[in-house]
Amino acid sequence: MAKRAKKKLRRTAARRLKGFRDITAAQVSARDWMIAKVRQVYEAYGFVPLETPALEYVDVLGKFLPEADRPDAGIFALQDENDEWVALRYDLTAPLSRFVAANINELPTPYRRYQVGPVWRVEKPGPGRFREFYQCDFDTVGTASMIADAEACCVMADTLEALDISPGDYIVRVNDRKVLSGVLERIGGDRPLDYTVSLNILRSIDKLDRVGPEGVGQLLGKGRKDESGAFVQGVGLEPDRIEKILDYLRSRRDSRGAVCDKMERLVQGSEIGTEGVSELRQIDQFLRDAGYDESRVVIDPTVVRGLEYYTGPVFEADLTFKITDDGALRQSGTAARQGSSSPSPVGSVFSGGRYDGLVKRFLGRQIPATGASIGVDRLLAALTHIGKIDTAQATAGVMVTRLDKTMTAQYQQIAADLRRAGVNTELYVGTQNIGKQFKYAGDSGKIAVVVMGSDEAERGEVSVKDLRLGDELSKEIGEDRKKWLEQQPAQISVPRDKIVDAVREILARYIG
Amino acid sequence: MAKRAKKKLRRTAARRLKGFRDITAAQVSARDWMIAKVRQVYEAYGFVPLETPALEYVDVLGKFLPEADRPDAGIFALQDENDEWVALRYDLTAPLSRFVAANINELPTPYRRYQVGPVWRVEKPGPGRFREFYQCDFDTVGTASMIADAEACCVMADTLEALDISPGDYIVRVNDRKVLSGVLERIGGDRPLDYTVSLNILRSIDKLDRVGPEGVGQLLGKGRKDESGAFVQGVGLEPDRIEKILDYLRSRRDSRGAVCDKMERLVQGSEIGTEGVSELRQIDQFLRDAGYDESRVVIDPTVVRGLEYYTGPVFEADLTFKITDDGALRQSGTAARQGSSSPSPVGSVFSGGRYDGLVKRFLGRQIPATGASIGVDRLLAALTHIGKIDTAQATAGVMVTRLDKTMTAQYQQIAADLRRAGVNTELYVGTQNIGKQFKYAGDSGKIAVVVMGSDEAERGEVSVKDLRLGDELSKEIGEDRKKWLEQQPAQISVPRDKIVDAVREILARYIG
Repeated sequence: MAKRAKKKLRRTAARRLKGFRDITAAQVSARDWMIAKVRQVYEAYGFVPLETPALEYVDVLGKFLPEADRPDAGIFALQDENDEWVALRYDLTAPLSRFVAANINELPTPYRRYQVGPVWRVEKPGPGRFREFYQCDFDTVGTASMIADAEACCVMADTLEALDISPGDYIVRVNDRKVLSGVLERIGGDRPLDYTVSLNILRSIDKLDRVGPEGVGQLLGKGRKDESGAFVQGVGLEPDRIEKILDYLRSRRDSRGAVCDKMERLVQGSEIGTEGVSELRQIDQFLRDAGYDESRVVIDPTVVRGLEYYTGPVFEADLTFKITDDGALRQSGTAARQGSSSPSPVGSVFSGGRYDGLVKRFLGRQIPATGASIGVDRLLAALTHIGKIDTAQATAGVMVTRLDKTMTAQYQQIAADLRRAGVNTELYVGTQNIGKQFKYAGDSGKIAVVVMGSDEAERGEVSVKDLRLGDELSKEIGEDRKKWLEQQPAQISVPRDKIVDAVREILARYIG
Repeated sequence: MAKRAKKKLRRTAARRLKGFRDITAAQVSARDWMIAKVRQVYEAYGFVPLETPALEYVDVLGKFLPEADRPDAGIFALQDENDEWVALRYDLTAPLSRFVAANINELPTPYRRYQVGPVWRVEKPGPGRFREFYQCDFDTVGTASMIADAEACCVMADTLEALDISPGDYIVRVNDRKVLSGVLERIGGDRPLDYTVSLNILRSIDKLDRVGPEGVGQLLGKGRKDESGAFVQGVGLEPDRIEKILDYLRSRRDSRGAVCDKMERLVQGSEIGTEGVSELRQIDQFLRDAGYDESRVVIDPTVVRGLEYYTGPVFEADLTFKITDDGALRQSGTAARQGSSSPSPVGSVFSGGRYDGLVKRFLGRQIPATGASIGVDRLLAALTHIGKIDTAQATAGVMVTRLDKTMTAQYQQIAADLRRAGVNTELYVGTQNIGKQFKYAGDSGKIAVVVMGSDEAERGEVSVKDLRLGDELSKEIGEDRKKWLEQQPAQISVPRDKIVDAVREILARYIG
């Protein structure tokens, strides 16, 4: 057998697919910490977990990728043993729709589920842009009530606050597709705008944050030169129509009620537009009753959201604090769009809306639904960036060295005692010398090491060394902290039966 | 836009791929609960999390699937945009090997990681047999020390005990591939056995639990009729050789030391066999020092483990209690093999071994490694079966009904108060009448509902109804419990500012 195994060996390159990544300890722990917080909020509102397969039939997934221009591309697809096309899911909404359609008679109405998991897209990889990334969705399926949409805004706000982001550092922005349709209808007047023109108007509106009102005006008219000097062809609207749109957009900074009033005037005479404003007023009412004022949730006429399937309210939560983009946040945010390295707001990290048509693809009848999705990687990068996640704690623990390998039995006992006391404890299982064992402990993030030689063992003693103290002392730190640190012994010798207390004391220096 | 959306609609069948499943709330919660326990044990031993991509290059994955007969089949593969073959990972070990090879100079030695996640295999789907399933691995890479293997046995035992399975209900069985090689070498004598014969002998040995010693004897000789009456061709060994193998197998019930003694005699003269026995003795020593006696870990000469890549110690943890197989456990266990519905032991739920060759495929030099993997679904099914998981708690919470929809603001306040007190609380967001709201609350697993009409509101009161009390009363339960239940009011009316206490009191009836 050994011989044959040898024959099979040939050198293979240890290649990883482009756009994919290995997520190491601190990052996994940080993400799990964040997701646990998110789930807690979702569950607090009565959403329950669901997990659908990674693979679905391609026709089940549908053609709802944001890249409207190439609806067939963008997914990892393969043919199964019956030559049917299947693909890795590109979001969690299409699988939810399939699940609801298949189980419509068994599910409670409304059905409220959340799902956390990876999705896959064939996109051009880049800094912060991956082909495998996490989403974390919650949805309410089976009710047309605006309460579900309003509550979605509360869930988004609560989630960000559970992650220690305060109102002012985030804002939830709400709009309604029906209002947008109403505005377009009114602008069209006797000459209704065709589909492509409407779409291009929405796309121009969507760029407000990047190009400002003047830029949007140019994009709606003859066109605009972008930062690189390239000319972007405009929609070609007449000046009075452009002015109407800009007027609509200018209402964004007012109170929710005032925005609704303004919208109402703009869509007057449009049935769908009036319906949209009424929906937003219901949402506003619920939010006011729940105590979510404009410091948390605003109605913002500029919110469009790319996905074609939204049919009513749309919402997104933005992080408003500025950071210097380091690439990890370049996924789809403002910083990316500007291509700059100067501090800019993080932008959207959480978004969604009402999609009443998705399940209809399967059942032929409308099943109203609304929900939102977190861009997990993006939010995590932002949280890490502003120091809300202590990744150092993730792998915190101690290591018991094996100074004298003939004393392994005693080292095992110490390790077992510490584990029983709830301390993550690695017994060194390698074969290297004590110097390299210390280096290994440091490299693998341990806070302290336990050392015991034969002399000490005879005296019934054992030593604990604080591995981080030296690091701390050499950093520039405040006078008080420095003094405190200097009073901490980096290494202490304690009786064998006091080892748990001694280790705990050192851990307490770093873990709250 | 609405018009075009309509045009695009066509009925799609809400089909799910064969062998895949949707995992609903109670199951997701149960699995997460189990995995959290497992991770806690892994981390207690100093293993840190790693997450590798779902997709890898096919040559990186290698050909190590258990189905040795069809090494190319069994995976979900597709061609990427450069026409290179990539595939969904079929285990977590091949990706680990790639990761270690690619980062060998940066990783600490030994590198100890754990990974939890789905893997995908194209297998014939059946009850309890899925094409997407979870694994939960821990591995130590970079040391040849038997301490790492011995510790792996401790981790397996500790993990099962953390899941409330006691010694006696599980057993960790250890063997060494080198001992098996030594036995085959000795049996071959002057006429060394060829590779296929060796493999078939190992496969026959692997069947001991199912067919007994007599059956193994037949399989090693002329052949054997199985339960269905079909004849299975034997290996064709001579009787004296068969007797030697059976003699080896018979030592399994002895103490670890006695098994080693017997093995030593059997492999005498075989270098590799002697080395294997020495490895097992080192493991035995470590286990004894750590206090893991034969009630937890035995040395069992019949353990083979299918994967070709194991090179030294191999281990598996079996659940020994008997259950009546309900299909969910039929994955690869004893019950399945017997195809019976009479109670039989669950069998292996956790297995692994040393594989010193895997990283060599990439680097050309040996990187010793050892570790084990939990069959998450199988273990979870067993735990659920014996009632170790209270899946009912998973979605436990309360619902605030909307009896009078004009009073929604007040219902929101109640829901918010309860959430702030840490109670998962769903505000009913649908549009149905109160009767259907109660049904919905029950269907979605709520423990209690809060009801407030306008009369009550005027009196400053609110009602809470225990939804499960009726169910409990109608079950056959002990006299004491019944009496206790009858004293519990199913519905109580409390002052508005006492609602949190009242709800907590009802929840305390069901959640510890």
